[in-house]
Amino acid sequence: MTQFTLIRPVLKVCSLILLVFGLMMTVPLLMAIIYHTGNTAAFSNAIALTVGLAAGGWLLSRSHRINLLTPRQMFLITTTSWVLISLTGALPFLLIPGFCDISDAVFESVSGLTTTGSTVLTGLDTMAHDILVWRSILQWVGGLGVIGMAVAILPFLKVGGMRLFQTESSDWSDKAMPRSRTMVTMIIYVYIILTFLCTLAFMFTGMDSFHAVNHAMTTISTGGYSTSDSSFAQFADLGSHWVAITFMILGALPFAIYVHFLVKRNWRVFNDQQIRGFLLTILIISIIVTLHLMSDAGIDLLHAFTYATFNLVSVITTTGFASGDYSQWGNLAVAAFFFAMFIGGCSGSTSGGIKIFRFQLLFMMMQESIVRAVHPRAMIRRYYNGRAVDDSIVLSAVTFVFIMLLSLVIITLLLAFTGLDLTTSLTGAATALMNVGPGLGDTIGPAGNFSTLPDSSKWILSVGMLLGRLEFMTVILVLTPTYWKS
Amino acid sequence: MTQFTLIRPVLKVCSLILLVFGLMMTVPLLMAIIYHTGNTAAFSNAIALTVGLAAGGWLLSRSHRINLLTPRQMFLITTTSWVLISLTGALPFLLIPGFCDISDAVFESVSGLTTTGSTVLTGLDTMAHDILVWRSILQWVGGLGVIGMAVAILPFLKVGGMRLFQTESSDWSDKAMPRSRTMVTMIIYVYIILTFLCTLAFMFTGMDSFHAVNHAMTTISTGGYSTSDSSFAQFADLGSHWVAITFMILGALPFAIYVHFLVKRNWRVFNDQQIRGFLLTILIISIIVTLHLMSDAGIDLLHAFTYATFNLVSVITTTGFASGDYSQWGNLAVAAFFFAMFIGGCSGSTSGGIKIFRFQLLFMMMQESIVRAVHPRAMIRRYYNGRAVDDSIVLSAVTFVFIMLLSLVIITLLLAFTGLDLTTSLTGAATALMNVGPGLGDTIGPAGNFSTLPDSSKWILSVGMLLGRLEFMTVILVLTPTYWKS
Ligand SMILES: [K+]
Ligand SMILES: [K+]
Repeated sequence: MTQFTLIRPVLKVCSLILLVFGLMMTVPLLMAIIYHTGNTAAFSNAIALTVGLAAGGWLLSRSHRINLLTPRQMFLITTTSWVLISLTGALPFLLIPGFCDISDAVFESVSGLTTTGSTVLTGLDTMAHDILVWRSILQWVGGLGVIGMAVAILPFLKVGGMRLFQTESSDWSDKAMPRSRTMVTMIIYVYIILTFLCTLAFMFTGMDSFHAVNHAMTTISTGGYSTSDSSFAQFADLGSHWVAITFMILGALPFAIYVHFLVKRNWRVFNDQQIRGFLLTILIISIIVTLHLMSDAGIDLLHAFTYATFNLVSVITTTGFASGDYSQWGNLAVAAFFFAMFIGGCSGSTSGGIKIFRFQLLFMMMQESIVRAVHPRAMIRRYYNGRAVDDSIVLSAVTFVFIMLLSLVIITLLLAFTGLDLTTSLTGAATALMNVGPGLGDTIGPAGNFSTLPDSSKWILSVGMLLGRLEFMTVILVLTPTYWKS
Repeated sequence: MTQFTLIRPVLKVCSLILLVFGLMMTVPLLMAIIYHTGNTAAFSNAIALTVGLAAGGWLLSRSHRINLLTPRQMFLITTTSWVLISLTGALPFLLIPGFCDISDAVFESVSGLTTTGSTVLTGLDTMAHDILVWRSILQWVGGLGVIGMAVAILPFLKVGGMRLFQTESSDWSDKAMPRSRTMVTMIIYVYIILTFLCTLAFMFTGMDSFHAVNHAMTTISTGGYSTSDSSFAQFADLGSHWVAITFMILGALPFAIYVHFLVKRNWRVFNDQQIRGFLLTILIISIIVTLHLMSDAGIDLLHAFTYATFNLVSVITTTGFASGDYSQWGNLAVAAFFFAMFIGGCSGSTSGGIKIFRFQLLFMMMQESIVRAVHPRAMIRRYYNGRAVDDSIVLSAVTFVFIMLLSLVIITLLLAFTGLDLTTSLTGAATALMNVGPGLGDTIGPAGNFSTLPDSSKWILSVGMLLGRLEFMTVILVLTPTYWKS
């Protein structure tokens, strides 16, 4: 394959994605016009630039018909399109006069699209509604993009152990393409329905429609952007907390399962090894933290359970909403929340992190190791959800974890080099790579904000967020000489 | 195999090990007698108890002839003998009236034997010489024990990827037993010769014979116990630092290679993939830290290079000598030293940590992943030191890393539960599991001491040190029901 035939279909798909993304900006533009926020010009120009770029790319590649994409092209499409929408997503922030500089604009856009939700903006409570809506849309679109990637692209790239989720409908043969498309279409419907239900549920707890819509978009996408500097703590009632807990969990479950449910109308589809593992993990840690809060801080059961579960689910689903500063809950809670950041939700969801199935594969290997040590000649077969798992899937899942840890080390060192202390560097790197949002420490903790970091740190974190969101290998691969050798 | 025939040979071997260990205590006893330290009774009683215990075990198992040990028995021997010598090694500290309580005594003994080198004792500079020598002997014996374990036992247990180092001479068939014994005997000679050379080199730099012998024992064993509360900073000259750097590195190289060198008289045996990777890692990080020290702290090249290399080698070989408080060297140095703790030296050496060869296997997998992603049908063969490496070795090495990380999480959480902050808990768990010595933070940092920790934390750390030293699986295995089912 020549570089030309490699790149042309990539350009075409990326142009299409960029076009759709540009059209999304009409929502905040309409709000700017209706509410006279003064940002009409900024959003119009951002749309013009984005759509213009898309049109340019389309013209360059128009003569090319896309039949079937190769894995190599899919890697390039994934990385390029995320970088392009990250940069164009920053345009509205950048084009509003005196709003923020380019480091902040790109950071905020990347943090939105990767559904990380770390923010460099302050004064959210009094910010123009069009900007707040744009932030929420960034997360909502980003969340959908990630599910699509996990369902339609990653399962048949030999990276990250995602081949575990390769099904007939994620086969990319010519024949299976329509089925794969149907799956993606149904997932979009599910995503919209869940967002709508979440909005209604929030309004039912007394939230006004603006806050309800925004938080629904950032909850289901496990994004974590809020409309207040105090994040979710702006809502005092326990009801809204439980709505958020429910929809954060729903956002962190595999969306393909919802589609199976709609097709089969059978609740048993939810009896899935990944879902069981995920819910059990939440339950166990939540009970421990609740008991700790009750005994240490003397909070009553209902409040302790609500706050413990909310903050845990927020961290474990990598949403990153804060309600109360859990770094004040004692050393055990801080350590538990630090490690929970790495867990993440289910594969094929909007959540980040290492993901439950990789931990399950690692635990299988540990059990195997024990059996093999005692019975050296034992024949061991692994099964996941009733399906045989070969060594190569385990090895690629393990490689994912290793690359993640290596990235964690490198980004921590780079952040330390920009002058951040070990706690800020380490938890900042972790929260970016896992797409969680808040870190630990005085600066970037649940009660803090990323605005005071040096620009160099912000760029490093932006790269980290994209790296984590694209499951590392997708990005690293297109940067290697191996990829470009034909 | 019945539990009886399983345990009896185990008891016999453990009794022998305990007997030899008990006789080691005659060295501090002699010193107590000669120097009138007042500890004669303590050491005599400790010897009586240890030798008595050994004799009891021997009598119970005497009728049994040991022919060939099974892997199951080797797991049990390893764990039991380390626990037994850890407890009896604490007797001298415990039997000296008013010296310390049982938590401290066991901690100090475990920290010594596992060559961790974290100390709960203060006032080392004025402490009786017999106690200081006993601490050094603990580390020296522990270091030798670890090499023996890595050369003669671990390579044919299916854990930790150590099968990579299975050679003819580490085959446990009847025929190969004498060869395996010769290897261990030769390693003991090499260990003694290196200790002797290190003592001479230290004396050459102006150290008196007592300090030279003690530091030689704790340098070659990468143990890190010192004769002063200020650790290695008591020696101001750069010469002694370079002697320590040299012998810490020599202690962290595979001892089997020294034996090959003595047999083959050919320097090319040192051209080993593990050694190359280890030295290259030290060189690169050392240069970075040196440049950082020169530019940030304005130290001249010679001093910066000496202190950077000394502290880096001390951490990376898991010796844990401190010379200057590197936590004052800026954020990059702190972060770099934190991660360096995990690297460790070569397999078959006295050092702890994850070990270089496991990182090399992980890097191989990463490269493979990249090739496989672009060329899905590529046939890839792995080689280590020119030898084919199958999936099962890689998987068991990876399982080691995973169990280590899981232990790190659990021990950090337990330490946090005993009231330690995240930095102390996390770096305390890491320094114990990796057998390094000092952690980070105000309490257990390079300038600190473990004496102020709660007793519960000390016991958790003692378990952690043993767990790390025995490469996790050896301990975990004998605690599982799978092991005891025949
Ligand atoms: K998030
Ligand atoms: K050590």
